[in-house]
Amino acid sequence: MNASHAPAPAAVDLPRAYRLLNHGPTVLVSAAHGGRRNLMAAAWSVPLDFDPPKIAVVIDKSTYTRELVEASGSFALSVPCRALARATMAVGSVSGRDLADRDKFEACAVAAFAGPVLGLPLVGGCVGWMECRVVSEPRNEARYDLFIGEVVSALADPRVFTDGRWHFDEGQQELRTIHYIAGGRFFEIGEAFDAN
Amino acid sequence: MNASHAPAPAAVDLPRAYRLLNHGPTVLVSAAHGGRRNLMAAAWSVPLDFDPPKIAVVIDKSTYTRELVEASGSFALSVPCRALARATMAVGSVSGRDLADRDKFEACAVAAFAGPVLGLPLVGGCVGWMECRVVSEPRNEARYDLFIGEVVSALADPRVFTDGRWHFDEGQQELRTIHYIAGGRFFEIGEAFDAN
Repeated sequence: MNASHAPAPAAVDLPRAYRLLNHGPTVLVSAAHGGRRNLMAAAWSVPLDFDPPKIAVVIDKSTYTRELVEASGSFALSVPCRALARATMAVGSVSGRDLADRDKFEACAVAAFAGPVLGLPLVGGCVGWMECRVVSEPRNEARYDLFIGEVVSALADPRVFTDGRWHFDEGQQELRTIHYIAGGRFFEIGEAFDAN
Repeated sequence: MNASHAPAPAAVDLPRAYRLLNHGPTVLVSAAHGGRRNLMAAAWSVPLDFDPPKIAVVIDKSTYTRELVEASGSFALSVPCRALARATMAVGSVSGRDLADRDKFEACAVAAFAGPVLGLPLVGGCVGWMECRVVSEPRNEARYDLFIGEVVSALADPRVFTDGRWHFDEGQQELRTIHYIAGGRFFEIGEAFDAN
């Protein structure tokens, strides 16, 4: 699961971008503004529309990431896999505000690469990524901490997402998406099956 | 997996109700008004708040369920398990409007029982349930098909949800939550693990 062995992220057709979130994974939210960047973990995200693709994510008022989202008008979602579970807990357990001179990517030893459209910091070692422009909805943001984003780029790890679908084989446990329970405990996504 | 062998649904403390959705399962949305009832499948739901608990779900304008939600000001979510995957596809593939004299529960051979607070039709054989009062947000409903609900009752199957958490054992594959991919294909939720 060495990131240096991972293939380059592959573009996902935008009308299929919702598929990255359709099965309910926990995500990492990242943002950058004025030379600062940050990231946080979020179990609460949801697709909202297909084309143009929109998603929604809950970003608490107390977070430093939110400050950067509000200042920049954009955010990115990265979909972590089991290999990133410990890092997901780590970035969800400390505020970027408390790190003084370091940023949280460095403090948590999380790699980043620049998103193709907005240049947002995407999290290395994840299996899916999207860059979003905030669709301004001040009432939702204030009352529900709910941010709506239009997805302007989407990428996925071609080992586990091709033709617009996730597919995890037996040997790919470390690449499976993770779904938060509570108290540091996750489910990995399980077996795929046809219902018809 | 005979429903007659299932234990009675157990109450979930309301501040833990979000846990029913936290790991991103596909849900069934049901509603009733004026002697009619209906249900639909929805992959797009998300917790919004802890206490009082709120959730959000996307309910398309074209659905009959939405008509009943708007008329009644309430809806229920049921969390189907693998045993209900075929039924989930079935209720997601036909509109209650096209069924003339029958309702979709009967047409799809889906059992229902009355929710404890609002009397809404909850789907038998599922593993989690919540009744919600609509928190009116006309702009979200019109622009994003997004409905916010305050959760007023929550129940779960005590075989797989106790002490505020899902837990699925080896032998409980048919009770695992399902997470929609596309084209009639789902993931079941997989193994739980500690990230710390």
